[in-house]
Amino acid sequence: MLDLHKKVLVSFFNKYLPEKEKEYKKINGWSEYICTKLLQFIINGKMIRGGLVLRSYLFIKDNISEDAIKVAAAIELIHSSLLIHDDIMDKDKFRRGEKTIPAQFSEIGEKQNYLNPEHFGNSIGISFGDLGFFMGFELLSQIKEVSENKVNEFISGELSKVTLAQMQDVDGGYSKDEFSENEILSIYKYKTGRYSISTPLIVGAMLAGMPNHNLRTLENLGEDLGILFQIKDDELNLFGKKNKTGKPNGSDIRENKKTLLRHFLYKSSSKEQQKKLRFIFGNSNISKVQIKYVLDLIKELKIRERIKEITNKLEKKTKNYIDELKLPDKQKHAFLEFLEYNLERKK
Amino acid sequence: MLDLHKKVLVSFFNKYLPEKEKEYKKINGWSEYICTKLLQFIINGKMIRGGLVLRSYLFIKDNISEDAIKVAAAIELIHSSLLIHDDIMDKDKFRRGEKTIPAQFSEIGEKQNYLNPEHFGNSIGISFGDLGFFMGFELLSQIKEVSENKVNEFISGELSKVTLAQMQDVDGGYSKDEFSENEILSIYKYKTGRYSISTPLIVGAMLAGMPNHNLRTLENLGEDLGILFQIKDDELNLFGKKNKTGKPNGSDIRENKKTLLRHFLYKSSSKEQQKKLRFIFGNSNISKVQIKYVLDLIKELKIRERIKEITNKLEKKTKNYIDELKLPDKQKHAFLEFLEYNLERKK
Repeated sequence: MLDLHKKVLVSFFNKYLPEKEKEYKKINGWSEYICTKLLQFIINGKMIRGGLVLRSYLFIKDNISEDAIKVAAAIELIHSSLLIHDDIMDKDKFRRGEKTIPAQFSEIGEKQNYLNPEHFGNSIGISFGDLGFFMGFELLSQIKEVSENKVNEFISGELSKVTLAQMQDVDGGYSKDEFSENEILSIYKYKTGRYSISTPLIVGAMLAGMPNHNLRTLENLGEDLGILFQIKDDELNLFGKKNKTGKPNGSDIRENKKTLLRHFLYKSSSKEQQKKLRFIFGNSNISKVQIKYVLDLIKELKIRERIKEITNKLEKKTKNYIDELKLPDKQKHAFLEFLEYNLERKK
Repeated sequence: MLDLHKKVLVSFFNKYLPEKEKEYKKINGWSEYICTKLLQFIINGKMIRGGLVLRSYLFIKDNISEDAIKVAAAIELIHSSLLIHDDIMDKDKFRRGEKTIPAQFSEIGEKQNYLNPEHFGNSIGISFGDLGFFMGFELLSQIKEVSENKVNEFISGELSKVTLAQMQDVDGGYSKDEFSENEILSIYKYKTGRYSISTPLIVGAMLAGMPNHNLRTLENLGEDLGILFQIKDDELNLFGKKNKTGKPNGSDIRENKKTLLRHFLYKSSSKEQQKKLRFIFGNSNISKVQIKYVLDLIKELKIRERIKEITNKLEKKTKNYIDELKLPDKQKHAFLEFLEYNLERKK
């Protein structure tokens, strides 16, 4: 289902970004470079958020409008830009199966014999992300449907909240304090639930004119689906296949991410094991053997089974919300399919 | 004149940011922290861009509207956020008379014994700037006047262009290639002229309903005023008083900024002198003696006099544009005053 929507968005970007390139040409020579890299980076993504905007729009309307595509594209542009900034913060070198944008520019800096090419790459990466935000908001300002103001206000409000959750998340990577289960679930709720699922669903429905009480159900549904999505992401980070996820395993361990998996692992392990874990988590130079130690311990202590209890409950809740929406069969089915995809995906 | 407008904006922010703090409190504990620091950072600024929005609005209307204040505040929020990102790229530690935002968080990281506190400070700084953008666009989506769409589209379009000029500027700091006078003036035009002066002037006038042909004149006027503003900034960076500018002298030398001053200095100096300059520019550990060498050479080779020829021409052009606008005496006077301020300012 989302693949179909991705196609629509890919063809939008294939037309839009070369046009932007032409427009920016008069400023300086960076135009071609940037627009080409941006196009590639966006197209490599799964476009789940943009896809959900369109999916949700089609709950109400029979056909996708130009405005819906613009909003979906804006959300993908802004999301890609947040990822570019994330990759700087996390020092990630791979994303979407290729070098991250800052890593690509670091390489260019190296080739040019620049002093401190890594900082050069990060600096261009910051501006690159900023550009993506502004392009996204420009698109948002071009939509013509009545609810435009409301949509823009809602999107920027949600994005503000994400940055606060992101700060807490970054801090968690540095801090030696353990987060409680509730703190972790709150980051999942704001960083993934509301941002990645509720927001696109609500935006699509708002554009199409869905009544307010249903928007509230979509919000709740999105939050829980998002937590499921994040838990899956955490699992894939440790147990996924690199050739599917597009990034090397275990980066969450190196970055000391306060995931739910890590939380239960610490909670269930002995003092001796905790000491070892403390040495491994947050250590950027860990070996494959050390990663294997963590994975084996997760298996031994049945941590995934513990997480499964949580996801089972969430799954039930989301199914209830889907029922509450009282959608026609075909649309209900599409939603259940998305839930299924979320639980089974390999990347 | 701009001081008066700053007062209006300060009182807006004194109300707005504590409100936002309350709203964000439900997400996590970063809310109070961030909103307090953001308020301080914004208030420490000169608020020239926001002031110009209000100034320009008053060319047409007799009283400032709530919408005009919101747009002016949005532009200040977005500008402050760009500066926070700039300070990461330039590794600047002081801004607006205090530690930069990333430097403030680096210090916090140090106190918490975080590994790599500088990267921690930069990471929070990136998110902090992103938050400011989103808050700004949220405000922009709340305005109610007819031209709202047009205003938002124009602002985000101009901001996109700034990021491209910024990339070129960052690259210039690393690259050993010299920029031509035209390349430098193009960066000045987009990074300062259009962004800092034309855009706020046009936005204020758009909101107030100024006719299109006058908008075009404002655009040209802003570009030239902006180049004058940037040239003054370059001079203050080398010859200003730290207690007035709020940052230590000579950071442009350390960062190898491709300024017009530097351009003419290289052009006018002997091979021997160029060799020395090449060693000094872009060297982050230069001594006061080396900075003095550059300043003395600028005096000896009469570089400021050469720049003065350019600024004289620009001054004349801007005065013609001001005439073209056919403003009432009081408003024309305010404009000439701003030009004067621009030429004479000490910070």
